[in-house]
Amino acid sequence: MQRTLDDGCCGFDDVRMRGFRERATVGQVCEWLDARCRTLGSEVVSLASAFGRVLASPVIASLDVPPFDRSAMDGFAMRGAETTGAGDYNPLALRLIGQSLPGRPFAGEVVVGTAIRIMTGAPIPSGADAVLPAEFAREVGERVEFTAAMAPGRNIGRRGEDVAAGQTVLESGRRLRPQDVGLLASIGVQSVSVVKRPRVRVLATGDELAVPGDDRKPFQIFDSNSPTLHALIERDGGELESSRLLIDDRAAIAAALTEPGADIILVSGGSSVGAEDHAPAVLSEVGALPIHGVAMRPSSPTGIGHIGDVLVFLLPGNPVSCLCAYDFFAGRAIRQLGGRLSDWPYLRQRAIVGSKIVSAVGRVDYCRVRLESDRIEPISTSGASILSSTTRAAGFVIVPAELEGYAPGTEVEVFLYDPLP
Amino acid sequence: MQRTLDDGCCGFDDVRMRGFRERATVGQVCEWLDARCRTLGSEVVSLASAFGRVLASPVIASLDVPPFDRSAMDGFAMRGAETTGAGDYNPLALRLIGQSLPGRPFAGEVVVGTAIRIMTGAPIPSGADAVLPAEFAREVGERVEFTAAMAPGRNIGRRGEDVAAGQTVLESGRRLRPQDVGLLASIGVQSVSVVKRPRVRVLATGDELAVPGDDRKPFQIFDSNSPTLHALIERDGGELESSRLLIDDRAAIAAALTEPGADIILVSGGSSVGAEDHAPAVLSEVGALPIHGVAMRPSSPTGIGHIGDVLVFLLPGNPVSCLCAYDFFAGRAIRQLGGRLSDWPYLRQRAIVGSKIVSAVGRVDYCRVRLESDRIEPISTSGASILSSTTRAAGFVIVPAELEGYAPGTEVEVFLYDPLP
Repeated sequence: MQRTLDDGCCGFDDVRMRGFRERATVGQVCEWLDARCRTLGSEVVSLASAFGRVLASPVIASLDVPPFDRSAMDGFAMRGAETTGAGDYNPLALRLIGQSLPGRPFAGEVVVGTAIRIMTGAPIPSGADAVLPAEFAREVGERVEFTAAMAPGRNIGRRGEDVAAGQTVLESGRRLRPQDVGLLASIGVQSVSVVKRPRVRVLATGDELAVPGDDRKPFQIFDSNSPTLHALIERDGGELESSRLLIDDRAAIAAALTEPGADIILVSGGSSVGAEDHAPAVLSEVGALPIHGVAMRPSSPTGIGHIGDVLVFLLPGNPVSCLCAYDFFAGRAIRQLGGRLSDWPYLRQRAIVGSKIVSAVGRVDYCRVRLESDRIEPISTSGASILSSTTRAAGFVIVPAELEGYAPGTEVEVFLYDPLP
Repeated sequence: MQRTLDDGCCGFDDVRMRGFRERATVGQVCEWLDARCRTLGSEVVSLASAFGRVLASPVIASLDVPPFDRSAMDGFAMRGAETTGAGDYNPLALRLIGQSLPGRPFAGEVVVGTAIRIMTGAPIPSGADAVLPAEFAREVGERVEFTAAMAPGRNIGRRGEDVAAGQTVLESGRRLRPQDVGLLASIGVQSVSVVKRPRVRVLATGDELAVPGDDRKPFQIFDSNSPTLHALIERDGGELESSRLLIDDRAAIAAALTEPGADIILVSGGSSVGAEDHAPAVLSEVGALPIHGVAMRPSSPTGIGHIGDVLVFLLPGNPVSCLCAYDFFAGRAIRQLGGRLSDWPYLRQRAIVGSKIVSAVGRVDYCRVRLESDRIEPISTSGASILSSTTRAAGFVIVPAELEGYAPGTEVEVFLYDPLP
């Protein structure tokens, strides 16, 4: 029987100390998320902070670029027809009557028999219709001698040839490249309307958690999930709304879940079936928890629900599970709310399986691997609590639910943890 | 004759209004840069701002993670030997004498005939040596019945199994991943020593330049190079030290070049052979300009020099040339000074050439292309002044100096402008 994921028909199962009865598939969860994730509204930011942001509306040029005909070369401007026949063995000459510099145009007219000195980007003066590059010319007193012919129109950049006024230069949804920011500046844009960054709240639950710098009590551990999540949120274009450590207490968790201000809430720890795992029950009370338990390893105790429009992710406390559940589900939502693509922000590489990768039919497996040239070796660990498995690994391989694993020699796709240079 | 690029033997050629006599190859320039670029010194940053930074020294763990033996499951801890023979048809029972929660350990000892309730992450009490998962157990009054056997050691995470005190957890030169930041937190690290960000000064020269928001005069254009460069510097891990528009004036350029505070200076515009191109001569006076003119298109009038240890890049003013020269040379230097890899931060994709891509033997060509599934089409433009060619393009193709171009049907590598999702 397929589990349905509609909010309405899924009562909350309290799984504490009993275990999950049925688990959603990774595909079902992603479908549910994709159907629910709508791009957030817009905000106006200055061009100086627009790089990498996603345009919320198209940008239409209000002026031509360039705003005037200009020289594409350093050289001399003249009437092109007067250069006809010029060559190395037939140098011609014109009278030099002035110059046009960028921002300091020649005020007169280039009449028959005359030329002006002109620099790249300088306005083409009235009368001239071609520019002869400096390497084909030589100034001799008040004249310029030239050894090449330039047809009318040569080496002139026409008004509006880069951008024409009225043109849509960038479409809504565009993630701004460095050169996009430059192009926007070239049409005089000072600020742009971009998709808001998703505001993400991080709640790490657990009486055992301490923060580096605190006086760690015996039997406490330092919270590693919050720092990892902060970096992942930054990577995916989210904005950290707030981050708190919470003790295993229903009231504290309920208060932190229901406080307004976040678009997405990530709860790490306490998502599973332990007696102190309050988050699932609390979320069911204050909102809805249509997904609890996913057919994957690690991260199987992941829960996903919402409080009104706020998406809530219950991420397992084990650090590898937390990272994996974030990457499969929470990151996907953050990227989509922020107007980015849902795909993984990981480089991919084809590689050959060395030692066998073991999984089980019916669950998706997230397997950390070492990479040596084009061969991978799974990292054997005792489980999802070993965060160093993800720092020693070059990346990970996904074993789909329909496979028992990968035999040695299989070619697979590896997702690399390291970013582009 | 190969041009040598040693500072000592290259006098400055004033190429103004004469043109370049000889050009360095792209390979020579990259070699010169790689030999000169040394990773900058270190600074200490808080862990909260360490994501993406490059470690300046290895990090050695000062404690074990976990710092105690702990349960890997929610369930019951006991002496494993006492579970031998338990099964669905042979449930066994032990007396429940307490519980161990994360951060709230069981203070007593698990003696023969007893068990305690235990949660994932909670300390294993004295006497116990195995954890039985909750799904194989049932509490009945003061007893726990279980239907599976657990050998000693099962479901226990050993002290130090993730990180052992004294171990080097991350090496110098590591660009910190999200999970690296988490791992550092797990060993109690609050701040780390990372490579300084290269401080980059941007000088846009030209009397024709205006800034969006200014009252643009006739025959002025809005500066697009500075905003593009700011974004590129951010992408490559640099820090914008300052950014200024300068008029075409030797003294102003000399002052801006020699003011201390930058590791790298980018000058856009005025790098070529025009009468108002002062930057090359000024740089030769106040420092050295061993490279001026590169065998490539666009960006051929690129100059690269230094003032003491400060690298100075003279980038052509045409916006595509400026972008291209940055990407070939300045970005490479910024990344290396910051401890990153020199490689391009662009995704790569194999694709088939549609219409012919034209180049010339002896120069490297940077050709913007459209991409449709796996076919590319060059974007035909009138040249390097058309910045919109780089916003309409999916990416670019490099034609090496030894080729005349690419024939239709050739498989080539495309560098994609858009980043990972």
